[in-house]
Amino acid sequence: MSLTRIHNLSISLDGFATGEPQSKEAPFGHAGERLHEWMFATRFWKKTGGTVGADHAFAERHEPGIGAEIMGANKFGPPGWQDDPDWKGWWGPNPPFHTPTFVLTHRPRPPIEMAGGTTFHFLDASPAEALQAAREAAGGQDVRIGGGATVVRDFVAAGLVDNMHLVQVPIVLGRGVRVWDGLEALEQGYDIEVVSTPSGVTHLTFMRKRG
Amino acid sequence: MSLTRIHNLSISLDGFATGEPQSKEAPFGHAGERLHEWMFATRFWKKTGGTVGADHAFAERHEPGIGAEIMGANKFGPPGWQDDPDWKGWWGPNPPFHTPTFVLTHRPRPPIEMAGGTTFHFLDASPAEALQAAREAAGGQDVRIGGGATVVRDFVAAGLVDNMHLVQVPIVLGRGVRVWDGLEALEQGYDIEVVSTPSGVTHLTFMRKRG
Ligand SMILES: NC(=O)c1ccc[n+]([C@@H]2O[C@H](COP(=O)([O-])OP(=O)(O)OC[C@H]3O[C@@H](n4cnc5c(N)ncnc54)[C@H](OP(=O)(O)O)[C@@H]3O)[C@@H](O)[C@H]2O)c1
Ligand SMILES: NC(=O)c1ccc[n+]([C@@H]2O[C@H](COP(=O)([O-])OP(=O)(O)OC[C@H]3O[C@@H](n4cnc5c(N)ncnc54)[C@H](OP(=O)(O)O)[C@@H]3O)[C@@H](O)[C@H]2O)c1
Repeated sequence: MSLTRIHNLSISLDGFATGEPQSKEAPFGHAGERLHEWMFATRFWKKTGGTVGADHAFAERHEPGIGAEIMGANKFGPPGWQDDPDWKGWWGPNPPFHTPTFVLTHRPRPPIEMAGGTTFHFLDASPAEALQAAREAAGGQDVRIGGGATVVRDFVAAGLVDNMHLVQVPIVLGRGVRVWDGLEALEQGYDIEVVSTPSGVTHLTFMRKRG
Repeated sequence: MSLTRIHNLSISLDGFATGEPQSKEAPFGHAGERLHEWMFATRFWKKTGGTVGADHAFAERHEPGIGAEIMGANKFGPPGWQDDPDWKGWWGPNPPFHTPTFVLTHRPRPPIEMAGGTTFHFLDASPAEALQAAREAAGGQDVRIGGGATVVRDFVAAGLVDNMHLVQVPIVLGRGVRVWDGLEALEQGYDIEVVSTPSGVTHLTFMRKRG
């Protein structure tokens, strides 16, 4: 069965998955790189060297078994990217997705084929419709909801997410986009496991309850 | 040196230390008892029986070395208690404080002496003034800020808190009073340690940086 999964979504103690304001120079706003320092230290990120403990084990789960990704317009580019016909994402010619990748936006454009197996498709569609498109493109594998917070929230609220992995970093951002908003009583639909690691972060995994 | 400490303040994943609406029947609103189930399981709470692991060890730190408590009006009673001249708190004739206990309220009344060493004093004062009064009453011991979230936030924001212990419970309350609001960049002033325990909660300890 093809699952819908979220991995490595990093949040502050107060639940923000990004700071503000977002810009080309500061994609995470005043959060800077602080939400992801735990990941930058792992072998998953560094490829050679890096830690191979719990943070690495969790981070690595991002890749295997994923056949398509869905992301929001604000993960794909800085404010205004829709006015730049040449914008192809942050990630250079060979983006790290290597699958069909669906960008939700109210201003869609034709698909862009990149090197390494990533094709960006632009969709103005409901979460359920977008998931159906991604599922069809995923060749029987799982679909990853890649963020940001707005898209994660919308897919979780719509009951479309099977597994979710959040990483809580011990900083208080105070402002940005909060992942928890609108998700009251989320625990009723999920088995939740929580583990802190020596780097100081806390991994939260949500597994959808089967009825 | 007399410290200002916070212990066992239980919050949801989204940072709420109480649900809503607060009432005599439901002091924590829609949160019910869910924020404190981790504590009810410990020997600290049960007195006989109960767990004696990490949750108990943290919970117990609430008591030793405390010479006075400060709490907010909404911890002392349900909405409207100020209109009831007979209201003496939730805790019966022998409240669990056993020290001078300062209740911050815009409608103060004369002190109430209870059994077991608790005297309630009612203060309309700034956090710094209230802390000074509590410090003088504490006989050289530490002062505990007992909650709720509003008072905790105000004392932390005023830079008055040395140690803070929060307990994050894996539920999403969605509404209530959030402990994080107004505390952006809190991590700059504190060393933070985080540990999850087998009961599923996460203990966060904040120790003020000396500099
Ligand atoms: N913390 C992490 O681990 C993590 C992970 C990924 C990303 N991020 C960061 O999170 C930030 C982005 O998050 P965000 O919450 O601001 O935005 P987002 O979720 O990336 O994107 C939201 C935007 O996507 C478009 N959109 C969403 N749903 C749509 C739908 N159903 N139909 C059509 N368009 C739709 C809308 O843009 P338009 O109306 O403009 O088209 C909407 O404003 C970035 O800073 C990114 O770097 C963080
Ligand atoms: N989660 C936990 O572990 C925990 C711990 C303790 C309490 N709680 C719960 O938290 C809730 C109460 O929290 P809360 O945030 O609603 O309120 P609170 O912090 O208990 O009290 C806030 C109120 O205290 C008065 N006050 C505060 N500062 C003052 C000042 N400087 N001068 C004069 N008056 C001042 C004001 O009341 P007036 O203007 O009405 O006088 C204010 O509205 C209750 O449900 C309680 O059971 C939870």
